[in-house]
Amino acid sequence: MTQENENRPQPLNRSDFPIFVALQTRWMDNDIYGHLNNVIYYSLFDTAVNRWLIEQGALDIHAGEVIGLVVETHCNFFASLAFPQQVEAGIRVARRGRSSVRYEIGLFAEGEPLCAALGHFVHVYVERDSHRPVAQLPEAYLKALAPLER
Amino acid sequence: MTQENENRPQPLNRSDFPIFVALQTRWMDNDIYGHLNNVIYYSLFDTAVNRWLIEQGALDIHAGEVIGLVVETHCNFFASLAFPQQVEAGIRVARRGRSSVRYEIGLFAEGEPLCAALGHFVHVYVERDSHRPVAQLPEAYLKALAPLER
Amino acid sequence: MTQENENRPQPLNRSDFPIFVALQTRWMDNDIYGHLNNVIYYSLFDTAVNRWLIEQGALDIHAGEVIGLVVETHCNFFASLAFPQQVEAGIRVARRGRSSVRYEIGLFAEGEPLCAALGHFVHVYVERDSHRPVAQLPEAYLKALAPLER
Amino acid sequence: MTQENENRPQPLNRSDFPIFVALQTRWMDNDIYGHLNNVIYYSLFDTAVNRWLIEQGALDIHAGEVIGLVVETHCNFFASLAFPQQVEAGIRVARRGRSSVRYEIGLFAEGEPLCAALGHFVHVYVERDSHRPVAQLPEAYLKALAPLER
Repeated sequence: MTQENENRPQPLNRSDFPIFVALQTRWMDNDIYGHLNNVIYYSLFDTAVNRWLIEQGALDIHAGEVIGLVVETHCNFFASLAFPQQVEAGIRVARRGRSSVRYEIGLFAEGEPLCAALGHFVHVYVERDSHRPVAQLPEAYLKALAPLER
Repeated sequence: MTQENENRPQPLNRSDFPIFVALQTRWMDNDIYGHLNNVIYYSLFDTAVNRWLIEQGALDIHAGEVIGLVVETHCNFFASLAFPQQVEAGIRVARRGRSSVRYEIGLFAEGEPLCAALGHFVHVYVERDSHRPVAQLPEAYLKALAPLER
Repeated sequence: MTQENENRPQPLNRSDFPIFVALQTRWMDNDIYGHLNNVIYYSLFDTAVNRWLIEQGALDIHAGEVIGLVVETHCNFFASLAFPQQVEAGIRVARRGRSSVRYEIGLFAEGEPLCAALGHFVHVYVERDSHRPVAQLPEAYLKALAPLER
Repeated sequence: MTQENENRPQPLNRSDFPIFVALQTRWMDNDIYGHLNNVIYYSLFDTAVNRWLIEQGALDIHAGEVIGLVVETHCNFFASLAFPQQVEAGIRVARRGRSSVRYEIGLFAEGEPLCAALGHFVHVYVERDSHRPVAQLPEAYLKALAPLER
């Protein structure tokens, strides 16, 4: 689109992601230009990853002793999405440290081979009360992350 | 809950609604107390009704000549909902005027017979450019509304 | 606007409200039609009232033993607002029960004598852990509410 | 916080930013953990930059022929913010191309010398109808950007 961004990121394919989560858009996601506001993409990232972690039994947002704090997020936008489109979020783990995980998420419009947006966010897992990073990820997290690390 | 609200509204049953739309919750819908923020319910109302109108071919948000302006909204909250719950939105038309429609929406947690929240909103349908109420609802709207008026 | 709503609510004047809170709009508040999405008004109501309660020392969202649960909200829309407008929220207490308070909020565009939107919400104050309504409002609440009951 | 991120970004000082915009937080910005949800930061970025562009006469969201499309956003989180805190957004232009601008934004809690979050976003300025990048930024944009490029 612009010569200034020669090395800019490229969209990924569906085959780059081992797991997909179906997400809905909402009426108010559309901004004045008729497409999803850029902020909404991050809400979809959050929702896709946390839903996976909850459904896999890793994250208990009400009572769990370990919670994830977001320390970095990023997104590149390749094509627009708009309500009432459905979105498929591909998720994968790009790097896992002792207490941190870097998730990469591709948001795909239905039927599209390339993602409309590609983002990542880095969770540091901490003890809920002290906010100190855990010494190691709990077993339930390792299990939930395994399918994303394929 | 309080003696002060003796005549307060009661939750409706699933059988009170002719049409249901499945809706997702999002991570950031949960507020500091761990449940859907009250504001989010209105976003779900909007989404349920507008998705219906779009899917039925009545509303074209990008190019349609008739758009709906919201003039009144209301909600009573009976029970809490929380991410990652799925929500089923029952919708019905409670009153239809020459240019206005009053929609009633019940939000049900999966498997629950009574709605967790019951709301309404009133759309006045206007010409997109002039914002003047239409003389009568377009045929496509009447068709889309019929199943909701049972 | 429509014959169907003959007794519909009328906008209030600034003099109807004893206290005003200045609020900002955000870029993403604007919807596809270029004005504040109807959902956003409720976020402004919440913000105006809770900020008042916090600043007056009544509400401690992190550690307070009493929290407010929303049981009913309502809004009538008379004129549109849009980012980047500033909004002045007039607030008053319309009714106070043993454990519940009905707040009324008028949102005014700068310089406008009549409110663009008029809403209310009903808080029931409960014990944070049990969610049981308090036997009576704490002293700090009574103090914070007094200027709104003028 | 974690050994895994040795070269991770550091927070900037107030003196790193030529222009500041005061921003409010909202009740519903707080997530279940009691602090601003990470998504909200991007809404603050958007608001700070677009408000500046509008106030300086560059951006006309309703009728302007040139609009900004977001192609990349990023944020690093160093400390938490929470409603009802006020936030000061420092903004600067880090790079300006023929049709694109990279904005950097630091969000500061009142009285804090280091930013709680540091982000950037890249706008490509396009013709509203065709979505084709402009051949060069309009004069009004160059004027609005000048104070940010100091």
